Amino acid sequence: MPSTIDPRRLKELVRLLDQMGLEQVKLERINPSEFDWLLIDQALVHPSFSGTYNNDQLEFVGDSVLRLSVSLFLKEHYGDRKVGDLAALRSHLVSDKTLAEIASFYDLQKYVVVSNAARNDLQALRSLLADALEALMAAIYINTQDLAFIRKWLDPHMQRFAESLLAIPALGNYKVALQELTQGRWKRLPEYRNVSTAQDNPSNLFSVEVWFDDRLWGQGQGKSIKAAQQEAAAIALQEMQSEI
Amino acid sequence: MPSTIDPRRLKELVRLLDQMGLEQVKLERINPSEFDWLLIDQALVHPSFSGTYNNDQLEFVGDSVLRLSVSLFLKEHYGDRKVGDLAALRSHLVSDKTLAEIASFYDLQKYVVVSNAARNDLQALRSLLADALEALMAAIYINTQDLAFIRKWLDPHMQRFAESLLAIPALGNYKVALQELTQGRWKRLPEYRNVSTAQDNPSNLFSVEVWFDDRLWGQGQGKSIKAAQQEAAAIALQEMQSEI
Repeated sequence: MPSTIDPRRLKELVRLLDQMGLEQVKLERINPSEFDWLLIDQALVHPSFSGTYNNDQLEFVGDSVLRLSVSLFLKEHYGDRKVGDLAALRSHLVSDKTLAEIASFYDLQKYVVVSNAARNDLQALRSLLADALEALMAAIYINTQDLAFIRKWLDPHMQRFAESLLAIPALGNYKVALQELTQGRWKRLPEYRNVSTAQDNPSNLFSVEVWFDDRLWGQGQGKSIKAAQQEAAAIALQEMQSEI
Repeated sequence: MPSTIDPRRLKELVRLLDQMGLEQVKLERINPSEFDWLLIDQALVHPSFSGTYNNDQLEFVGDSVLRLSVSLFLKEHYGDRKVGDLAALRSHLVSDKTLAEIASFYDLQKYVVVSNAARNDLQALRSLLADALEALMAAIYINTQDLAFIRKWLDPHMQRFAESLLAIPALGNYKVALQELTQGRWKRLPEYRNVSTAQDNPSNLFSVEVWFDDRLWGQGQGKSIKAAQQEAAAIALQEMQSEI
């Protein structure tokens, strides 16, 4: 485990945080000697590169930093909507797909330390970049202990994604929108399968899958069948739209 | 939607936060005129009582406040363990069962506003109290914008639950522990069912169910089959232990 950071690497990381608009905020409010740049470095090291010094635990925390930031964003900006709609929106906004798009906005690929094998696996790249971005959020949060730093740069991205999601016809009702899509293009309906029911499920969550053409397109969980279906439909819809 | 809070209700809520050890911290660091007690009140109103003034959106946020608090707690206290173990621990610590136990520690039932029908449904009570506690965490977080208030009272509870979970034989390996339990008592093994695989699942998560005696005992999700099985086993283990 390194105890100091290479000056060239430090310069790169400062540039990255600067591009995210964080360097200036940080300088105003954090004592520079208290900012742990090694944690920022570690957030960008993929487990394929090192089994001991990598971002797996930061990603574990970062997933929750992201989820809380997005939940607060949604409550503040779309608080007039039903909580089921907010949950469906959230499942999109925290998805690997959304995260990988934000990551590519900042060229995160250039900063990530990863084995050559993993770098050349394009299938895995999306999830690798999403994980690194989540880990980076954790590193920034742990350094600052203040979600405001995350939300300052994350909110405008989320605003953009949320607006384009809500521009889908059958606004916010993903089941209806998915049905319109499959019906319109292929004259058939998607099929919802209940994977479990609350009766025999200790976690009290309903779990639903949505299938079309012998393929699983999305999964959703929720406190009601309806909420789980909406979540599954939202994911399926995004996936289908990205393929057609 | 009320614009002021009944003085008797306010007195009750101050007592509740005092019992949680929060009143004193709050007074030291928050301007009392800026603390929104109506938000605390709303966190304790169940949707069965009012369709418009209730805790459903706060619960949506609070779920993430809890998850981030627990993730940070686990990284700080059990950072020497594998991230799969932390994920299995977290799935316990954020469960309705754990939350309902913490809620009963503070007699939250006395403070919750709920329809009579819902109050008498003992089955639903656990989930109702868990939701109210999550909503309360959101209300406290939104008021203070500082997770330290949550963690100050939540961490000791989580420490207690984590220690008792880790005292299970086959420490941290919930699959082995579950196998030992069912094998030892009933001479049979639990069955793991893969609900989906990463190939046909756009969210890239594996989903696994664990069944025993024709009953679903737990569900888990993870980036590998192994991680999903550990999570499912952890939930099943806790559930079985609470029944025997």
